[in-house]
Amino acid sequence: MGFETTKEGYPLHNQNQQSPSPSIASVGTRTPVTIVGLGPMGRALAGAFLRAGHPTTVWNRSPGKADDLAAQGAYRADRIADAVAASPLVIVCVLNDDAVHAILEPVAAALKGRTLVNLTADSPARARGTAAWAAEHGIDYVDGAIMTPTPTIGTPAASVLYSGSSDAFEAVRPALASIGGAVSHLGDDPGRAAAFDVALLDLFWTSMSGYVHALALARTENIPARELAVHAQGIVRILPAIMTSIADQVDAGRYPGDSSNLLSAAAGMTHILHAARHHGLDTSVLTAAKAIAQRAIDAGHGTEGFSRLVEEIRQPSV
Amino acid sequence: MGFETTKEGYPLHNQNQQSPSPSIASVGTRTPVTIVGLGPMGRALAGAFLRAGHPTTVWNRSPGKADDLAAQGAYRADRIADAVAASPLVIVCVLNDDAVHAILEPVAAALKGRTLVNLTADSPARARGTAAWAAEHGIDYVDGAIMTPTPTIGTPAASVLYSGSSDAFEAVRPALASIGGAVSHLGDDPGRAAAFDVALLDLFWTSMSGYVHALALARTENIPARELAVHAQGIVRILPAIMTSIADQVDAGRYPGDSSNLLSAAAGMTHILHAARHHGLDTSVLTAAKAIAQRAIDAGHGTEGFSRLVEEIRQPSV
Repeated sequence: MGFETTKEGYPLHNQNQQSPSPSIASVGTRTPVTIVGLGPMGRALAGAFLRAGHPTTVWNRSPGKADDLAAQGAYRADRIADAVAASPLVIVCVLNDDAVHAILEPVAAALKGRTLVNLTADSPARARGTAAWAAEHGIDYVDGAIMTPTPTIGTPAASVLYSGSSDAFEAVRPALASIGGAVSHLGDDPGRAAAFDVALLDLFWTSMSGYVHALALARTENIPARELAVHAQGIVRILPAIMTSIADQVDAGRYPGDSSNLLSAAAGMTHILHAARHHGLDTSVLTAAKAIAQRAIDAGHGTEGFSRLVEEIRQPSV
Repeated sequence: MGFETTKEGYPLHNQNQQSPSPSIASVGTRTPVTIVGLGPMGRALAGAFLRAGHPTTVWNRSPGKADDLAAQGAYRADRIADAVAASPLVIVCVLNDDAVHAILEPVAAALKGRTLVNLTADSPARARGTAAWAAEHGIDYVDGAIMTPTPTIGTPAASVLYSGSSDAFEAVRPALASIGGAVSHLGDDPGRAAAFDVALLDLFWTSMSGYVHALALARTENIPARELAVHAQGIVRILPAIMTSIADQVDAGRYPGDSSNLLSAAAGMTHILHAARHHGLDTSVLTAAKAIAQRAIDAGHGTEGFSRLVEEIRQPSV
């Protein structure tokens, strides 16, 4: 998801569990892995590889992030060149693509012949740029996007999307299974995982903004957050079926409004905006959402479905 | 939910099923019900009551909406006064509170001693106003908010929130069970159901806006909507746990940022905004969401959690 990519400390979800040190046997059977970047997500990844028995090397630009991991059996490299040299599989998970290049360009020669899996969240274009840089230096490259929060890493609830060279991906797929959960490869285009990531983060952050606004609105009526949350979860449970229906309409380019249309959607939004303004809340997010619906209505699409807005959002705002 | 409250025709989900006409026995055991308003939701409600064996009377301001229902055994009243006189339980589900008053004020005397259940979506203040009007006229009043789409009505998937007089509610609770699913009474304040409804619609429409934007962004990378939808549903599945965690923080008034903070949230949003602007998309919704996060960061809350924004949204925008 990339929503936990800052570098401040974050306790690993399972840090209090007994973690086996890698045995000689596991050293023989598990691919050695190097984790570059020990923010909350990098630390969670390193913990998962350690628990799965991989010889695990860790490195972070600023020191002091690896104490827990070293206690669990990680090898703490002092220099990035040593870290890269320690494993055939190098995973980088840092703040953004600029940090990837700042850290790895000086050790491009040491990376030659190894596989670099980049789990740093950035744009599709930058993932393609990093893939091109890797190819120039003889580095096998896989780009990935982590779709679930740190506590899921190393559990069946984890989900990571990958894209880039199928050959490079298949060679490291067994090792990547230690991250847990679903492992999906979306194709040879190295930008594909980032393209999914950015669209899904768009949904995530917009929904989260809607949720905190709903809590603020509920609070004006003295509804405790926990009481609203129960029903908000009910709303979230009806979304998947609606999402499928909208996606089918978008792919078909047909936006039927027979069960719900843009006029009724805009009326619903107006009704919320009135209540929120009545209580002096900031209404900028829903006001912007309603303006897009209104633009589609003004263009004659009022009796079409909400899915029609996918066309409207394509128009640049002027 | 109120997102299907327009009056255009909408085929009942179960219209092709064999529907038993009310028998003499069922007339004796099931409460007669009148449905005022035959938009998609009103028609779904009438269908559910008919299938459950209630003698069901229907009325709509504009004619021609009741043909299917009449074929299933509904009594089609020509005049609103006749419709109201036909049942001890009158359910109104129309466009908004103005329509409720326009339709029912002329027949207030006929409603006296009956129970009026108002399933029209409007604001908490207006629900309280309608409750006061009902009390003046000796009408038992229950306000309700339908939380699930029309196809759920009459099935276990339906969910309706009610509030208002407990005595009035308990008297009609067995009849309301025919709407299906969960029946919740939120207390004697008649505005409570509408207060939940407006906050939950806020979440719903903001999330829906995020979803169509994500589809538009995915399309710029040639990702089919159905392919994104599968992963979008994965995002939606991680929301309930996050919602509970945020609600607990809000109720406690403490906003820890140790697993994810506003600085990383804003960085994530910036990254999406760049990708969306690069493709010429309208970015007004997420720009507004990010501005609220930035305001909190500027006020010194950058290392606090996203839940902190509940406080920020309370500030009136100037």
